[in-house]
Amino acid sequence: MIAEILSTGDEIRSGSLIDTNSAYIARKLEEIGIEVVRHNCVGDSVEHLSQILMEIGERADIAVVTGGLGPTIDDLSAVAAARASHVPVECNEVAMQSMVAFFEKRNFTMSASNKKQAMLPQGSECLVNPVGTAPGFLMKIGGCDVFFLPGVPFEMRRMLEDQVTSRILKTSGDKALCLVKTISTFGLGESVIGERIRDAEHMFSEIKVGLRAKFPEVQVKFYGRSEDEDTLRQHMAILEKWVFEKLGRKIFSLEGESMEMVVGQLLRQKGASLALAESCTGGLIAHRLTEVSGSSDYFLFSGVTYSNAAKVKVLGVDESTLLKYGAVHEKIAAQMAVGAQKTAGATYGLATTGIAGPGGGSREKPVGTVCIGLATPETVVTGTYCFPFGQRWMIKSVFAMKALDLLRRELLMAS
Amino acid sequence: MIAEILSTGDEIRSGSLIDTNSAYIARKLEEIGIEVVRHNCVGDSVEHLSQILMEIGERADIAVVTGGLGPTIDDLSAVAAARASHVPVECNEVAMQSMVAFFEKRNFTMSASNKKQAMLPQGSECLVNPVGTAPGFLMKIGGCDVFFLPGVPFEMRRMLEDQVTSRILKTSGDKALCLVKTISTFGLGESVIGERIRDAEHMFSEIKVGLRAKFPEVQVKFYGRSEDEDTLRQHMAILEKWVFEKLGRKIFSLEGESMEMVVGQLLRQKGASLALAESCTGGLIAHRLTEVSGSSDYFLFSGVTYSNAAKVKVLGVDESTLLKYGAVHEKIAAQMAVGAQKTAGATYGLATTGIAGPGGGSREKPVGTVCIGLATPETVVTGTYCFPFGQRWMIKSVFAMKALDLLRRELLMAS
Repeated sequence: MIAEILSTGDEIRSGSLIDTNSAYIARKLEEIGIEVVRHNCVGDSVEHLSQILMEIGERADIAVVTGGLGPTIDDLSAVAAARASHVPVECNEVAMQSMVAFFEKRNFTMSASNKKQAMLPQGSECLVNPVGTAPGFLMKIGGCDVFFLPGVPFEMRRMLEDQVTSRILKTSGDKALCLVKTISTFGLGESVIGERIRDAEHMFSEIKVGLRAKFPEVQVKFYGRSEDEDTLRQHMAILEKWVFEKLGRKIFSLEGESMEMVVGQLLRQKGASLALAESCTGGLIAHRLTEVSGSSDYFLFSGVTYSNAAKVKVLGVDESTLLKYGAVHEKIAAQMAVGAQKTAGATYGLATTGIAGPGGGSREKPVGTVCIGLATPETVVTGTYCFPFGQRWMIKSVFAMKALDLLRRELLMAS
Repeated sequence: MIAEILSTGDEIRSGSLIDTNSAYIARKLEEIGIEVVRHNCVGDSVEHLSQILMEIGERADIAVVTGGLGPTIDDLSAVAAARASHVPVECNEVAMQSMVAFFEKRNFTMSASNKKQAMLPQGSECLVNPVGTAPGFLMKIGGCDVFFLPGVPFEMRRMLEDQVTSRILKTSGDKALCLVKTISTFGLGESVIGERIRDAEHMFSEIKVGLRAKFPEVQVKFYGRSEDEDTLRQHMAILEKWVFEKLGRKIFSLEGESMEMVVGQLLRQKGASLALAESCTGGLIAHRLTEVSGSSDYFLFSGVTYSNAAKVKVLGVDESTLLKYGAVHEKIAAQMAVGAQKTAGATYGLATTGIAGPGGGSREKPVGTVCIGLATPETVVTGTYCFPFGQRWMIKSVFAMKALDLLRRELLMAS
């Protein structure tokens, strides 16, 4: 089965937007055993779009197209698809109804330009979009089943899962079972992990092993594919155990969960609560923890104390210690952690103070230095770490991850 | 002049790596007036590579190819290029000398596999790589000048500038200038903006107008292209003024800046400082503000008070008001804003309390409801808003944006 991907839109063609959709789609199709042979991209031009669709129709069995389904005049995918298979566009009833329902549910008024979105090529099948206004569609062009999805990444991802991969699996008649396993790690680089688990690649012929850097974590992925489900599951389990022995506590989830989910589950299991004191992470740890629904059960408070005055007033940090050692010091991290813990009446207090850059570094404390304090019910532990990664967002992100990982390890030991 | 881009390599084809090179190359070529018509990507296969190179040779005048120049067996660009133009590969003296010099300068030993990198298609011109071992090359395939560059981004970027764009400018004689302008808006959907500025598309033939949804903002983009720079700049300015009249205060930046940059600049201009009190946004506003380097000059503190106890203790919210009205109420938002302002001694206090979902909603206060409080030096203003967008991260994100936008408008009025 030959698959291709087509990204459309002038933003991607002209380079003002980086195309992340194609990589996502390629990975998802590979996970169900379909090899993507080509990626293509053209801009918002009916001529270029219909031309490339005809070419893909001759070359591929399956194609996923993203973008060009919106309400504006530069959204041309339906018209180009119709032209590529020599049919007109017409109002698709399913598409229209799904849009009316979408707007009614939200008490919004549907505009005339939205109605254009229901004009799909004759004979195409509407793919309902549950999370946006732009319906997708599936149609045959040449010998190829072409799935048209929106370009907005979260809409595309939802529809790829709901409408595309499930349909492909159903119709392919392929009895092979595909299993994907994701192991999340933090604290080792991609190349070090690659070397440590190099032999995994050759352990079972039906299981491919890959690495995926998702800064600052690195995921180990198993792609298993076999008609013998029991053996495949057994082999996956053996491989998982083997990788666990090689990477140990650098693994924070055997299920591909995020660090904030893992920490949240551990806090919940213990009936414990958490308060934060964030200086250099600037609210990022709180933001990540509160991305998890139900986090209010264990997350009580973060004092994002960017100014020294706020550190003193809100967290009770000692002014003379601040003057003597500066804000980036383990003594301050300890006081911040205890201050947050006490203020909120939390089981644990976790604090960060450091230099995210690009300014503010010195020879003793370069950009990328962070002091982390962790107040437990019994004691306070602190540490200083340096992550010289360059960009501010990366440094904030790795600081936040390191702090959460220290809490995770403490929670595991305490159990 | 028709240009295409080809990315090669199994990492990109299979989606384990996102292709950032193509966007970079497209932007750089557009800057010198060359329109990229297609992007392509194939994996490490001589058949697929030589096939697509022949197609590009028939369609385009100029092409930039990245990847496949390394020392390993899956680096196949030179062999594929040779096959596409029916010539052999041979040892290129310039390439060999540049590599010997590269290794000598660094006191490294050149391995046998490195020598493979000097094997280039007969008749091709070596493009010396000053920052890596892989030499590039330029050759004619069909009617197309094809530039082969390394896939490592910083090597590719350096060589694109040194070897490609300068050569193209020298030979093309094309004097057209390309200008791109980005206007950032918040508060109107893509389709509404599309309708309001529909006529912009037809105002100047040399300027294309596009929309880009970057949730929760929508960007209006102008792509101008002309040999007459003065007139193009004049027309861009007229169009900008026209769009400004249509969208008014929904525009928060005429330069494509982020909301946190704009708010930060306004605070800095006024010598004002800011404290936050975040419940439902969970630290996201603080996180966004502190993504901007230097934000410690105006951002003092955020009290991320997820628990009611923290609202009372840290921000001084009145317990009886909490009991009477619940946490999601304008009275509470007002008290939180004033509490943050006072605690940190800030010029402004900005507070959010709401329901990010998916749980916690009711008939009176459905998921997506947020109360925002803004304490200024003179008064406190509050508002209740509802954004029924479904997913938790979207709701948090639009809450944060709305709060920052209210502060932005206040800062503009106060000036």
